Amino acid sequence: MIAMKTRLLAAGLTALATAALTTDAGAADAAAGRQKAKKCQTCHGIDGIAKIPIAPHIAGESQIYLETQLKAFRSGKREHEIMSVIAKDLSDADIADLSAWYSSVKITATMPQ
Amino acid sequence: MIAMKTRLLAAGLTALATAALTTDAGAADAAAGRQKAKKCQTCHGIDGIAKIPIAPHIAGESQIYLETQLKAFRSGKREHEIMSVIAKDLSDADIADLSAWYSSVKITATMPQ
Repeated sequence: MIAMKTRLLAAGLTALATAALTTDAGAADAAAGRQKAKKCQTCHGIDGIAKIPIAPHIAGESQIYLETQLKAFRSGKREHEIMSVIAKDLSDADIADLSAWYSSVKITATMPQ
Repeated sequence: MIAMKTRLLAAGLTALATAALTTDAGAADAAAGRQKAKKCQTCHGIDGIAKIPIAPHIAGESQIYLETQLKAFRSGKREHEIMSVIAKDLSDADIADLSAWYSSVKITATMPQ
């Protein structure tokens, strides 16, 4: 009886965890983000390697870092003459998708000898 | 006479430009920055590849971008619970050196297929 309850509990937790993961995955669509990134690529590149020195490379940054920065620009907590304007028009879904795209890029670093 | 003045002017401008470049180069020492980066590496890695999701990769970011962000954290223009504290104790030379170190790392990006 205890074993059955344990199995049911485990099954319930697995279902909950799966639902949570599905929701997260549904909210952040890297392929959609790649399309939306057309408005970012002049400065940050479509691969997240910046085209101009004042813009950061954002390739491979984590989902949470990118979302946090875009939301900070949108709210005014972080300010930049260009990004504050760009971020103002982004929905939560746009931010999730753009962050999913740029975080999906893999980067490697090579230190100078 | 005009030619001589032009040559003198050109020589003067070259000397000024050289002095400016020398000053800049002297102010940003990547090797010194690598040593100073020991206080950054727990979060950002010694190569600029972040160790934790909330910290950005800073490998290969431009000198001007890195300096601007560190100065923004130091002045309070940009805020972060950790970086605001760290940056408060950085001198202009520290900021120049750290920026020189992390900007000297080469990065490559690979987009998902």
